[in-house]
Amino acid sequence: MTTITPKVKEILSWYESENPGVKANLFRLLTTGKLAGTGKLVILPVDQGFEHGPARSFASNPDAYDPHYLYKLAIEAGLNAYAAPIGSIEQGAETFAGQIPLILKVNSANSLTSGNIGDQAVTASVDDALRLGCCAIGFTMYPGSDSFYGMQEELAEMSKEAKAKGLATVVWSYPRGGKISKEGETALDIVAYAAHMAALMGANIIKVKPPKAMIDLDAAKATYEKARVPMETLAQRIEHVMQACFAGKRIVVFSGGEAKGTDALVDEISQIAKGGANGSIVGRNAFQRPKAEALELLSRIVQVYANAA
Amino acid sequence: MTTITPKVKEILSWYESENPGVKANLFRLLTTGKLAGTGKLVILPVDQGFEHGPARSFASNPDAYDPHYLYKLAIEAGLNAYAAPIGSIEQGAETFAGQIPLILKVNSANSLTSGNIGDQAVTASVDDALRLGCCAIGFTMYPGSDSFYGMQEELAEMSKEAKAKGLATVVWSYPRGGKISKEGETALDIVAYAAHMAALMGANIIKVKPPKAMIDLDAAKATYEKARVPMETLAQRIEHVMQACFAGKRIVVFSGGEAKGTDALVDEISQIAKGGANGSIVGRNAFQRPKAEALELLSRIVQVYANAA
Amino acid sequence: MTTITPKVKEILSWYESENPGVKANLFRLLTTGKLAGTGKLVILPVDQGFEHGPARSFASNPDAYDPHYLYKLAIEAGLNAYAAPIGSIEQGAETFAGQIPLILKVNSANSLTSGNIGDQAVTASVDDALRLGCCAIGFTMYPGSDSFYGMQEELAEMSKEAKAKGLATVVWSYPRGGKISKEGETALDIVAYAAHMAALMGANIIKVKPPKAMIDLDAAKATYEKARVPMETLAQRIEHVMQACFAGKRIVVFSGGEAKGTDALVDEISQIAKGGANGSIVGRNAFQRPKAEALELLSRIVQVYANAA
Amino acid sequence: MTTITPKVKEILSWYESENPGVKANLFRLLTTGKLAGTGKLVILPVDQGFEHGPARSFASNPDAYDPHYLYKLAIEAGLNAYAAPIGSIEQGAETFAGQIPLILKVNSANSLTSGNIGDQAVTASVDDALRLGCCAIGFTMYPGSDSFYGMQEELAEMSKEAKAKGLATVVWSYPRGGKISKEGETALDIVAYAAHMAALMGANIIKVKPPKAMIDLDAAKATYEKARVPMETLAQRIEHVMQACFAGKRIVVFSGGEAKGTDALVDEISQIAKGGANGSIVGRNAFQRPKAEALELLSRIVQVYANAA
Amino acid sequence: MTTITPKVKEILSWYESENPGVKANLFRLLTTGKLAGTGKLVILPVDQGFEHGPARSFASNPDAYDPHYLYKLAIEAGLNAYAAPIGSIEQGAETFAGQIPLILKVNSANSLTSGNIGDQAVTASVDDALRLGCCAIGFTMYPGSDSFYGMQEELAEMSKEAKAKGLATVVWSYPRGGKISKEGETALDIVAYAAHMAALMGANIIKVKPPKAMIDLDAAKATYEKARVPMETLAQRIEHVMQACFAGKRIVVFSGGEAKGTDALVDEISQIAKGGANGSIVGRNAFQRPKAEALELLSRIVQVYANAA
Repeated sequence: MTTITPKVKEILSWYESENPGVKANLFRLLTTGKLAGTGKLVILPVDQGFEHGPARSFASNPDAYDPHYLYKLAIEAGLNAYAAPIGSIEQGAETFAGQIPLILKVNSANSLTSGNIGDQAVTASVDDALRLGCCAIGFTMYPGSDSFYGMQEELAEMSKEAKAKGLATVVWSYPRGGKISKEGETALDIVAYAAHMAALMGANIIKVKPPKAMIDLDAAKATYEKARVPMETLAQRIEHVMQACFAGKRIVVFSGGEAKGTDALVDEISQIAKGGANGSIVGRNAFQRPKAEALELLSRIVQVYANAA
Repeated sequence: MTTITPKVKEILSWYESENPGVKANLFRLLTTGKLAGTGKLVILPVDQGFEHGPARSFASNPDAYDPHYLYKLAIEAGLNAYAAPIGSIEQGAETFAGQIPLILKVNSANSLTSGNIGDQAVTASVDDALRLGCCAIGFTMYPGSDSFYGMQEELAEMSKEAKAKGLATVVWSYPRGGKISKEGETALDIVAYAAHMAALMGANIIKVKPPKAMIDLDAAKATYEKARVPMETLAQRIEHVMQACFAGKRIVVFSGGEAKGTDALVDEISQIAKGGANGSIVGRNAFQRPKAEALELLSRIVQVYANAA
Repeated sequence: MTTITPKVKEILSWYESENPGVKANLFRLLTTGKLAGTGKLVILPVDQGFEHGPARSFASNPDAYDPHYLYKLAIEAGLNAYAAPIGSIEQGAETFAGQIPLILKVNSANSLTSGNIGDQAVTASVDDALRLGCCAIGFTMYPGSDSFYGMQEELAEMSKEAKAKGLATVVWSYPRGGKISKEGETALDIVAYAAHMAALMGANIIKVKPPKAMIDLDAAKATYEKARVPMETLAQRIEHVMQACFAGKRIVVFSGGEAKGTDALVDEISQIAKGGANGSIVGRNAFQRPKAEALELLSRIVQVYANAA
Repeated sequence: MTTITPKVKEILSWYESENPGVKANLFRLLTTGKLAGTGKLVILPVDQGFEHGPARSFASNPDAYDPHYLYKLAIEAGLNAYAAPIGSIEQGAETFAGQIPLILKVNSANSLTSGNIGDQAVTASVDDALRLGCCAIGFTMYPGSDSFYGMQEELAEMSKEAKAKGLATVVWSYPRGGKISKEGETALDIVAYAAHMAALMGANIIKVKPPKAMIDLDAAKATYEKARVPMETLAQRIEHVMQACFAGKRIVVFSGGEAKGTDALVDEISQIAKGGANGSIVGRNAFQRPKAEALELLSRIVQVYANAA
Repeated sequence: MTTITPKVKEILSWYESENPGVKANLFRLLTTGKLAGTGKLVILPVDQGFEHGPARSFASNPDAYDPHYLYKLAIEAGLNAYAAPIGSIEQGAETFAGQIPLILKVNSANSLTSGNIGDQAVTASVDDALRLGCCAIGFTMYPGSDSFYGMQEELAEMSKEAKAKGLATVVWSYPRGGKISKEGETALDIVAYAAHMAALMGANIIKVKPPKAMIDLDAAKATYEKARVPMETLAQRIEHVMQACFAGKRIVVFSGGEAKGTDALVDEISQIAKGGANGSIVGRNAFQRPKAEALELLSRIVQVYANAA
């Protein structure tokens, strides 16, 4: 454990109503890896196996079929945490116990089912997170979907239990369905709304996608125009999302989005960092490349956040 | 704690079947702030983040993105209570512990979902209210909606638990759907019916919208005509709603409705006060203005009720 | 409590499998008021607030907006019990504690919802009945409705809990929907069937509407014809319903139906009494009149049953 | 609720691991009555009825037989809290709901039993405290007694539950038995040890007797001599006890001890205040005098602490 | 988190039946502070407040009255963990969240009681350890005492719960009473027996006192003579104790015993390290000195183990 930095101290002060157990786990997430102490985080999430099946997830880099590879990638890259479903976490939790903070992804969707589009299955519990040595549970909610209220109720229950037992709660907030257009899923108003609702649910860490320069809800357009919310650059849009999360007083991390070229990705992340984000969650862009390339990419991303700290 | 006034004593006497814990929390709500002891209440509710998203809620006064600002606004304005969802309550519950009675809003709707129009998600629990030091839980029900029976059953469960643990129950009763026309949602018969059902459910404090001079249900028209229920002025209509709440023996507060000009709002509230209402819940009209203006407005509203007491 | 009469002793003997707690509460219901010891009951039920809203329920006699008025009416009229939803019971349960047996109506419907026609919301619990000092829970079921099986399962659960905790169970059995024609809801075969199913569910007291001289179900017509079940007079039809309730070994009470003229109502009740009914439940006909008139009416009804005993 | 003072803010900061519910209740205790906001407390405890029976407790001032008298005494004297066993709390909790913070004394001893000298009976629960609207539970432990370990285990259980439900924990720590001489029960080393163990148990507020200038345990004498702990004046001894409670970072209040003359008592309390104590618990010296005298005495005591703040 | 060393990997492999949560917490204990990764540990335990009272514990270095001082001492000295009872842990758990692994001492004895010599009171729970962010619970058992079987059963229960929830279990095994002579409490056979029984109970970390060159139990003397167990030097005796703990496959740490001169202590610890111990628990020798001296001493002790690694 390293000495606490002023930045980490400030961040922990935002979580005033949490017990020391939750704060200790947030501390662990914030003081691990190359970004330790900076208040910035880079996280490796691997739940694409549920989402897209094994081949679409791992065939381009077959080493990644083995969960141990994913643990090692996160550890060697000096990341802050590794997030995955229960089966993947189990395959490595003992071998790498304590070496990297773990986020147990407790719900997941898959692409075989044609119904249930807007829902996920709860596949693990808070007690699983404790027995596997995790720092946090991770939960995905789909604002806008027909199942959203049910997902909120599941999250409220699990979050209450996690907090009581000293675990942090990470919420992936992915809008879809309802009044949201397909393209609008990453519109600025929608992403900000989704992030804000995660904060209102009591999330400790919020994960959303980088927002685009568009407003999707008609009801919101007048507001954005009148308030002249700057949204030209990605950095400006990130700033708006951070503001939507209790005036920047919640940890917010952004996905890298679709797989893309290295430079394009690093450029995008530089904008995200410039906007004040706490970090990035980089999945496919990392584990679908050969290890050396992946480490190289993650090193550049970590450097972006180190510079921004 | 102040000495009990005859008015507060009378109000507490209405809640004859509640245990002393619930009464002590009602006492706290009635003896805090500038209206302490008058039997009148002004409450700051902030759940628009769920309902309309962050920008529509806070962009016109960006200070309000920070939940601490909302706590301070309620405290500095000398209000009786602050009501919000769990995430917002958590961000301030420790800093401002004990300084303002808190109502934990335990369910919420949002405007991304196109379905679920008539339902809300339960996002917090009675135990959350206890650990966060709240005086009451707040629950919204939608009389008329297809989900109404389910909401009633959720409320019955949570209210029973809250009462056993000494917490008060505040019910937001917002009719919609079913046999109710869109315009009729604030018709006099509908608002009175909605308020009455909240009383029948055992609500300690009832929150409805100010009623319009119209009768929406055909089945009710004959009754209103025959009984010559006065409904020309807002004050008369408020009187009818108060009567519908056990002959005025429940605390009933009214929203200010849509954001509007200051004078118009104060005029409306004067009518509400004249009709015998216990108070107002003022959200957007308060937190969407710059702080100085908001304090000025709230001061005027408080004065209206002080004069009416 | 008075010494037990042979009639009450006989009635209690019917409930041979209930524990002494349930029997003591049935004893209280049977030994209160002017009909104490006769085996007859007149009960004041007030759940029209949920069903029809406050104005349609109380505008014709505004004193009735105050639940204390309803308690006093039942007590002063010398009735056996007062039945109402939780909020109304709470407003008086302490003031009038022990002065009148209470039946907590634990489910209710309302007329704002256009869906859910055949269901009710559970709005209170057996524990609520205990803490409020009630003798019984009251539950409405709708034989024939799409929700009937669900309602039966709710009743089975609540009845089991009530009995275990020494409370009696009163079942309002109101057929509607399914194979039942609108007019047939009070057909003799339907009412008898509905009453019988309440008995089969374990109800201690059964409440149905007075049956008409018609058979609604085609499948039943042959039987009624062949067996020559007498059904010309209301008294004959009541006799049939009583027979359908374990050969008269369950307490069955009948509603007065729609508000009507005093003499017509008393005549109808005389027929009901003549048929062997245990009593009447008189709601709107009682509380929608000025108090003096209501007491006068109730006095006549009580006299009818006193004469029949 | 008053605005928080720097002193109250500092005190609340000591309870860093408690949830906002516990802090809100500590806030209430610290912001009620004439000493509101000073960080000082005067508390009226009345559990002598258990300890010495009614006549020895109340015959000298028969008004005090009525628990309402005790509530009124605490309220009129502007004290911070009233502490009593469940029966006494119940007789007044509704009448005075919210007017004075309540500490539910959850265990008690009596002087009829010849055995059980070193134990107390648990006579109420955390849930009782919630339903009665109390801010805290109060628990007596007897360090040194044969039953001490059992009492610690009861306290650990009840304290855990109280904290989870947002209630504060007050521990009366009264050494007796074991290696402690009769006279040594209020020896400096023994009182400091007893107070320290209450702190180690997680007590939020600690209540001990004022210590005498003697060291009772042989094993401790060398330490006190070597460290030259000042103990000549009562103020010095109080300072040592405060130090023993986490270097003064716990609220510690002292009893007035045996009934004595007013001036002697006020002098003693002046010394206690000078030593840095947070306040006094004054029972018999208050309620065994006529009300006017009691109010006069309590006023002088409150003034002592007001001057010391 | 640092990369795992071969030594830590080996140590974790001994705990083959523990879940990854327990292993992650053992990893934390083994990879914190100056000895991180060496497989050696130095732990600061402070439960003398219960055992000997505040003055005997802290008067020689009054800064230590404040639990924050103890946290800082452990952190600044680069130790592996800090162990204390619940009250002390709470006073610092939030301020220093995550900065030092915490062992919640869940039972404690005191020296006021003359009875209960061979028992301790359970003063905290596994759930307390979770909410306070601890890595392990610490439990003392007294092999030989009349209460030993009871203590074992308490330990079995708490250890089961701790392991299921991912917490490690540290057992202080202090023989006394029964067939053990006073002097024999630290005899080689007795210490080895006590350590072995802790291992048999499933302890993850075992804490015993350094053994003397004597055999206490007559029944054991023949065995030790026949087997010629070397016991002349302390290092030899430590080796024997390590062997008794599953052939060295459990983490065993030794106390420094009574406060003594720095050089004498370091010499003793050098012998302990030479014998293969995993580390030392240094309480009074550390916190009863002025901070600079304490840091100097702890630095020398840490160096001893660093050299031995």
